[in-house]
Amino acid sequence: MMKLRLDYNNMMEEFVGEYGLSKKDFEKIAPKFAPAAAAMKEKRANGAMDWRDLPHNQNEVVKDILDYAAKIRDEVEYFVLLGIGGSALGPMAVHQALQHPFYNDLPRGKRGPKFYIADNVDPERLTYLFQVVDISKCLFNVVSKSGATSETMSQLMIVKKMLESAIGKEKAKERIVATTDAKVGNLIKIAADEGYKTFIIPTGVGGRFSLLSPVGLLPAAICGIDIKGLLEGAAFMDELCNEDEVFENPAYAYAALNYAALCKGANICVMMPYADKLKYISDWYVQLWAESLGKKYDNDGNVVNVGPTPIKALGATDQHAQVQLFAEGPFDKFVVFVGVDKFHEDIEIPKIFGDMPNIGFLGGHTHGALLKTEQMATEFAIMKSGKMNMTITLPEVNAHTLGQLLYMFEVATGFMGELMNINAFDQPGVEEGKNATYAMMGHPGYEEKKKELDGAPDKKKEYMID
Amino acid sequence: MMKLRLDYNNMMEEFVGEYGLSKKDFEKIAPKFAPAAAAMKEKRANGAMDWRDLPHNQNEVVKDILDYAAKIRDEVEYFVLLGIGGSALGPMAVHQALQHPFYNDLPRGKRGPKFYIADNVDPERLTYLFQVVDISKCLFNVVSKSGATSETMSQLMIVKKMLESAIGKEKAKERIVATTDAKVGNLIKIAADEGYKTFIIPTGVGGRFSLLSPVGLLPAAICGIDIKGLLEGAAFMDELCNEDEVFENPAYAYAALNYAALCKGANICVMMPYADKLKYISDWYVQLWAESLGKKYDNDGNVVNVGPTPIKALGATDQHAQVQLFAEGPFDKFVVFVGVDKFHEDIEIPKIFGDMPNIGFLGGHTHGALLKTEQMATEFAIMKSGKMNMTITLPEVNAHTLGQLLYMFEVATGFMGELMNINAFDQPGVEEGKNATYAMMGHPGYEEKKKELDGAPDKKKEYMID
Repeated sequence: MMKLRLDYNNMMEEFVGEYGLSKKDFEKIAPKFAPAAAAMKEKRANGAMDWRDLPHNQNEVVKDILDYAAKIRDEVEYFVLLGIGGSALGPMAVHQALQHPFYNDLPRGKRGPKFYIADNVDPERLTYLFQVVDISKCLFNVVSKSGATSETMSQLMIVKKMLESAIGKEKAKERIVATTDAKVGNLIKIAADEGYKTFIIPTGVGGRFSLLSPVGLLPAAICGIDIKGLLEGAAFMDELCNEDEVFENPAYAYAALNYAALCKGANICVMMPYADKLKYISDWYVQLWAESLGKKYDNDGNVVNVGPTPIKALGATDQHAQVQLFAEGPFDKFVVFVGVDKFHEDIEIPKIFGDMPNIGFLGGHTHGALLKTEQMATEFAIMKSGKMNMTITLPEVNAHTLGQLLYMFEVATGFMGELMNINAFDQPGVEEGKNATYAMMGHPGYEEKKKELDGAPDKKKEYMID
Repeated sequence: MMKLRLDYNNMMEEFVGEYGLSKKDFEKIAPKFAPAAAAMKEKRANGAMDWRDLPHNQNEVVKDILDYAAKIRDEVEYFVLLGIGGSALGPMAVHQALQHPFYNDLPRGKRGPKFYIADNVDPERLTYLFQVVDISKCLFNVVSKSGATSETMSQLMIVKKMLESAIGKEKAKERIVATTDAKVGNLIKIAADEGYKTFIIPTGVGGRFSLLSPVGLLPAAICGIDIKGLLEGAAFMDELCNEDEVFENPAYAYAALNYAALCKGANICVMMPYADKLKYISDWYVQLWAESLGKKYDNDGNVVNVGPTPIKALGATDQHAQVQLFAEGPFDKFVVFVGVDKFHEDIEIPKIFGDMPNIGFLGGHTHGALLKTEQMATEFAIMKSGKMNMTITLPEVNAHTLGQLLYMFEVATGFMGELMNINAFDQPGVEEGKNATYAMMGHPGYEEKKKELDGAPDKKKEYMID
């Protein structure tokens, strides 16, 4: 069985010195463990964490997705995902991890439709997309749980009109597939009215926990990824996560380490995989961690303004960008390395330039060995500089191990929320900006907000340079 | 004249409240301004900041680059850059900003060679690259100032052998172009021995300040970017940066605001452009800021462990990922928005679904207006949550305005280093990891380091979960 491993030796003061964690630090937070574990169980039982069950309850959904994917895969040349936030970051991370890194460049026989994600309302990007894809050969997957996401729904409005004028209304409806809530919101209503194929995001599954629902599974399946393997890996991790003993449960242990570090003043956590395939795991993780754990109020209504700040990095590339800061900068962060034991391909460095200083020694080694060595060397250097770090290792990157990793991070997020005594499953802080957008765009019912905006203090010329 | 603007109203306590900056905060740091400005002048005069002169002293270099680019552009089908850190981040940022966002997907008549960057030693990525590009039609640009960068030089070794066996030694040497130091290091020696065309990185120009040297200019020119415009924009900004009065000099003002915020405990700065074209500016900026300013020692040799932590974000996308944390989380950060007045293309949202809640209002607006409105709404929301933020605005994204922006950030980095009393131009913190890699890979002369590594305390089983 390929199982991921967690090594947190370098989080401990025995290894990194005074800024590391001690058993005392664990003792301080230990009283929170049992109540947090109990809360996790209770929430799952009460349906407040329906995403926990996605690895187990989707047999029919998976069949529907695979049937649909098999049919559509050869019918269209381009697959365009319209979604933002969790609806884009998850599919992007899975695609990068499990597909050929130059998937779109492969000849048609070796791949499904070319895959594009439109996750912004940048007016240039969408315009330019249609200069390189023929809309008459596109399938659009519009993904929004609420059906009210301005960015995604406005893209749907644009695409619908373009598609209908390109291939006619009847054919167009076969080229839009909606992933949304079963009952609530505009999108399910539009899909029913127009006759779009739909896939359902279960009620208790929020955007950033939706990767293992059709949000992530449909794009993966259309591009040819083993979605059953992904779910099996998640199910395997779910079993490990049923353990109540914190340091025997990888997700709980990961959260406890993060929490202990945060309590010690390390308010920044770096997610640094050492494999190009895992690069976008960091982007997905940043949303998961930041949006779940950055909160103004705790569960008792106190103003707390808490939240660790997650950072994206990539090894070895960031050794030449961010590692200087990680090593020599303040003791305000720790690094989570994600390594891989075995790459699917390797490549040998030829034995040339043998007499050249600092490069001759490279000949005869492989790139895989060089990357792995650089990872170990960076762990060592970060440790030696007194900065905490830990390492998660995947035996190899495949659907099963990726399912484990993603699910582990999701459970860890929930447990971290319990330790911090905040609600990890809402995002009230995005409402203000959304309402201000509504007001400025003339949304009916937001006249009061418009007045507030108009009444904001005028900006001062002295604080501008132009 | 298209000139960028800086608006820092929302950095001030009059707008954001108690966690904002006050005039007193400026008074506190003001004594550092004159010495810092003097140091900048002195260093420039002494050749310690040769990158400052790149906008002015490259007429011949530019001619050479343009001649070479014109010749090679039609001769090859693929242009592969081998470089890491500053050698990759700058070219990537410029390409994304000034090229078609789906450049590689355009028909050949509308673009130069397809552009790929190999900036990691991931063994899978390089193997897979040659499954989609025909090596006999590639030009490789190997970029390393020192000629000792393990990642880049090992790629060169691999590529050289493959290329020679594909097209023969004679032809191969026309398909490798080196960008490196004029005299020092392996790469200039190899280039001379093998007969590679070379472009020179001037001596006083470090990796992360090399974007306006041939490091950035050659790839840009080969892909068809207006490199003269880029340099003219930088030259224009250089004039603005000659101003000694800090708050009339955009780069100095930007640095002073960052420094004042850092002194107030905001150890994290978010770089958040609102345009897909500017997305990779954040990646380039993160290296520039993190590697320059994250330092263990100050200029007097005291251990200080300082450095703000830069964060990558993108609007509107990150409103659905990181903005929750920025708005509701701790008062440990501020946001730098980078906006655009005018997009090159816009796209209208059709007037459909008029009766649908929260989406009907969208019809009739453009995507450009929606994006711009969301930017203003997010600025407002972040301000209202009491978090500092400022906005840099480009009239439009073109070579000239981009040149201004990049050069402004570079000068700001230098000035910030002076305010912090650290050396912004070295990176001693990456040596430990490099030496550990050498030792583990069996590099002659690193036997002592190898012993140190072998003698490191054994990891404990109790701190592992597997």
